[in-house]
Amino acid sequence: MTTHILLIDCADRKGLVHHITGVLLRHDANITSNHEFVDHAAAHFFMRTEFTGEVDRGRVLDELRELLPAQARARFGPAGKRRIVVLATREHHCLGELLLRHSFGELNATIEAVVSNHATLGPLVGRFGVPFHAIEAGELSRADHEQAVIEQIEAYQPEYVVLAKYMRVLTPAFVARYRDRIINIHHSFLPAFVGANPYRQAFERGVKIIGATAHYVTDELDEGPIIAQSIIPVDHTQSAAAMMQAGRDVEKTVLARALRLVFEERVFLNGNRTVIFE
Amino acid sequence: MTTHILLIDCADRKGLVHHITGVLLRHDANITSNHEFVDHAAAHFFMRTEFTGEVDRGRVLDELRELLPAQARARFGPAGKRRIVVLATREHHCLGELLLRHSFGELNATIEAVVSNHATLGPLVGRFGVPFHAIEAGELSRADHEQAVIEQIEAYQPEYVVLAKYMRVLTPAFVARYRDRIINIHHSFLPAFVGANPYRQAFERGVKIIGATAHYVTDELDEGPIIAQSIIPVDHTQSAAAMMQAGRDVEKTVLARALRLVFEERVFLNGNRTVIFE
Amino acid sequence: MTTHILLIDCADRKGLVHHITGVLLRHDANITSNHEFVDHAAAHFFMRTEFTGEVDRGRVLDELRELLPAQARARFGPAGKRRIVVLATREHHCLGELLLRHSFGELNATIEAVVSNHATLGPLVGRFGVPFHAIEAGELSRADHEQAVIEQIEAYQPEYVVLAKYMRVLTPAFVARYRDRIINIHHSFLPAFVGANPYRQAFERGVKIIGATAHYVTDELDEGPIIAQSIIPVDHTQSAAAMMQAGRDVEKTVLARALRLVFEERVFLNGNRTVIFE
Amino acid sequence: MTTHILLIDCADRKGLVHHITGVLLRHDANITSNHEFVDHAAAHFFMRTEFTGEVDRGRVLDELRELLPAQARARFGPAGKRRIVVLATREHHCLGELLLRHSFGELNATIEAVVSNHATLGPLVGRFGVPFHAIEAGELSRADHEQAVIEQIEAYQPEYVVLAKYMRVLTPAFVARYRDRIINIHHSFLPAFVGANPYRQAFERGVKIIGATAHYVTDELDEGPIIAQSIIPVDHTQSAAAMMQAGRDVEKTVLARALRLVFEERVFLNGNRTVIFE
Repeated sequence: MTTHILLIDCADRKGLVHHITGVLLRHDANITSNHEFVDHAAAHFFMRTEFTGEVDRGRVLDELRELLPAQARARFGPAGKRRIVVLATREHHCLGELLLRHSFGELNATIEAVVSNHATLGPLVGRFGVPFHAIEAGELSRADHEQAVIEQIEAYQPEYVVLAKYMRVLTPAFVARYRDRIINIHHSFLPAFVGANPYRQAFERGVKIIGATAHYVTDELDEGPIIAQSIIPVDHTQSAAAMMQAGRDVEKTVLARALRLVFEERVFLNGNRTVIFE
Repeated sequence: MTTHILLIDCADRKGLVHHITGVLLRHDANITSNHEFVDHAAAHFFMRTEFTGEVDRGRVLDELRELLPAQARARFGPAGKRRIVVLATREHHCLGELLLRHSFGELNATIEAVVSNHATLGPLVGRFGVPFHAIEAGELSRADHEQAVIEQIEAYQPEYVVLAKYMRVLTPAFVARYRDRIINIHHSFLPAFVGANPYRQAFERGVKIIGATAHYVTDELDEGPIIAQSIIPVDHTQSAAAMMQAGRDVEKTVLARALRLVFEERVFLNGNRTVIFE
Repeated sequence: MTTHILLIDCADRKGLVHHITGVLLRHDANITSNHEFVDHAAAHFFMRTEFTGEVDRGRVLDELRELLPAQARARFGPAGKRRIVVLATREHHCLGELLLRHSFGELNATIEAVVSNHATLGPLVGRFGVPFHAIEAGELSRADHEQAVIEQIEAYQPEYVVLAKYMRVLTPAFVARYRDRIINIHHSFLPAFVGANPYRQAFERGVKIIGATAHYVTDELDEGPIIAQSIIPVDHTQSAAAMMQAGRDVEKTVLARALRLVFEERVFLNGNRTVIFE
Repeated sequence: MTTHILLIDCADRKGLVHHITGVLLRHDANITSNHEFVDHAAAHFFMRTEFTGEVDRGRVLDELRELLPAQARARFGPAGKRRIVVLATREHHCLGELLLRHSFGELNATIEAVVSNHATLGPLVGRFGVPFHAIEAGELSRADHEQAVIEQIEAYQPEYVVLAKYMRVLTPAFVARYRDRIINIHHSFLPAFVGANPYRQAFERGVKIIGATAHYVTDELDEGPIIAQSIIPVDHTQSAAAMMQAGRDVEKTVLARALRLVFEERVFLNGNRTVIFE
């Protein structure tokens, strides 16, 4: 039995659930999981429906569009795994976590390639038989280096670009090219400690908890919609380096969790926030 | 605009959401929050719908019953606050928490009275102007003491009986009288450390985390459906007494959280488990 | 047997523990709990020692000062409970928590009085038989209002001033008067969301976790040394108001925890950070 | 500068810290971190001291033994990394985590080999260039199979045997051979759900939190001293299989954490409990 994931968001109005489920019922779909949410301030409706049945997806969408408000978005989650390219720099923990999960089929994605601005992580990636491309910045201008990175990414036509501790700032052109398709792990509990060296900042501020944040990347550095966050307690005995070490376990867990949510089509963008149906 | 909470659970079959929301639409209801869950193993469907509108509840229920499967349960959450009686023994922390919340209208319930098998907590209850009845066991048999407690409870005709560290074992007759309407806080992370003195047990076992569990009371001691659980870390420096002290903050928070869920009609019983729509 | 808490911090050098414990041994003290920490970057030593024994505290301190480096701080934690005055505005949850703990002797402090810039909390404080003083700002200048508050506080000669959701900004003069003796609860996970309305900020940023921070008050708003922090998860279904409600449980727990740490003499200031011996 | 870790536990008595630090001072040691704990019920003293200095370890121990009570244990943490053999069955998540950390030198141990009762994990281990030995039980008696496993382990002379989801019950002879040197990860929040299939048990009990426990292995199954525990929330939407999947992230994190604590010599056994100096 084929499983389908139907994703709808549109202006809210009375009767949406009734009419949408009516379409599904006429196609003899069997709903196995259903989530709805209305953002009352924005008067916007979100719905994620998993169902089984042998439906003609195109016809379902056509019928839905006829009854949904103008500008409604309705789509089916793509079949199969997402194609992704991972960007990383020198730190191995997030990348290693993704490679391990990928190698056991647990990521709901295929890592088509890893692209890095350093050669450091090549041996790790090699262990897992995934293509690795080191594009060192060297004498290249920022624009030229990024262009080379983009060309390498484009060779794989990924659906998502995952920044697994990629320590280069992206240009607006890069972000625009992969709009809503870049996911980053930031090594702090955003919005605390935006920018560089958050563990050093956390140490100096004397916080008792540190964290990590997975988010979509937008033009504003560290300002994109948040998908997942997690924390761990720290204390006065931990230096900035010890906090960084401790934080790595949080970073990799949060990134993996965010990717699962996105790749299972559980995340809607709602302005600069997210609606997440778990 | 009146807000209604509609609660349905029944055997699962195709089209339930469509038909249920159709009834609501015909009554011109505006759904503001909707949750569904299907227990696939049991083929059972659960739905909680909040909506606004001036509907005739009786007619809505009649129409629903016509289209729902046999043995379906459909009801509206009662208007207003729940009437509760709280039972306690000597420890004040859970009771104090409930009295405070109650005094500021945050409990979605009115504490009609507190009944205790000791006089200890009388002054605390008195501060909040709530009736307090100490029924000491003294020379009474277990059955006679419980009978006296029941009579006192019955004077208030409560919808729920809340055990806020009531340290007496209830008889099956008591449990049967208030079936699915007794909520207890157990001072451990069930099913670890059932029975007496869980903090002592936790200390002796050398656990690194302790917890508390709020659950419905059934005939089997500490075996009823779990509503909420929470934990805190402990370490080797803490004696059993220190664990008990630390655990109190968890107990009172978990109990308050469970009561909020129940009194907001967010909890369905599903055999010995719960379905919770937050 | 008398229990003593000895608190030392000084420049680090070899042999400190040996020499300090030597003094205690000569006075026939029995150490029951001992904590040390060296901030290697600052080359500074911190030590908290609990011991039992009938010692002459003055002579112990004299002997310690002879062998400790210049500028060393050595003192005994005061006997008995701390005298505190609590400042609050309109929200009852933190204040109620402190009053409850106080009424059962669990705070290691006596609440001498509650001072507020509103009359709202008077009935709550009255339930617990604690003096309450409402000093409304009305037409008073900021300076004049604060002066009136100070005069009321001074009537009780407190060792600490606790800000339990006191929503007025304090002047540098106030902070200077009670240097290192003012403890505040801030309703965010600092340094995220400094300033006003942190729950509204958190909602708009779309964070997945909110928190609270207890800290010493310094001239820089929300910048003082952090004592304790805690968090809870939130999601897209929660409005700013719902986050505020959920955050209250964290706020009151964190504040109570910070006060316990401070009043048990477990907190050292170390520049703008804290060293905490639990 | 050489760093030393000195570990002492003995009957408690007055002056221990003073006398122990006196020995270190005479050897011109510079204490960089010091932890002590007294189990008052057992009147037993534990101390872990990190110091730098060029000391003769043998002479330090000789001098300590002269002044410590009879039956005192005093030793230095071994230099270098621990030699370990990992046992696993079919699940890769804990093993993969250890192999990744090991490959980046983060485990404070060298994985000398992986031994399994199945061939499944061979390819994963092969990626990291670590010897892998599959010893399938086949027609072997339990004793014969275990004997074969022991012989394979013995070829590597490990200091610790780590059970990374090894799903065979060990005989008392095995446990005795590696007394206090076997560390297991159990896939529940012990003592909840001892024995087989804890996620199925957790699902059926309807708990709202699941966890994992790393512990020393003793003759009593799942009863050994606990080193680390952690938890994650679950809800009614998760099947036993989904709980198992979610639990894996906890299992691998808890096991890695426990191993770090043990291999950094931060764990003392205290009867069936542990004293942990972090």
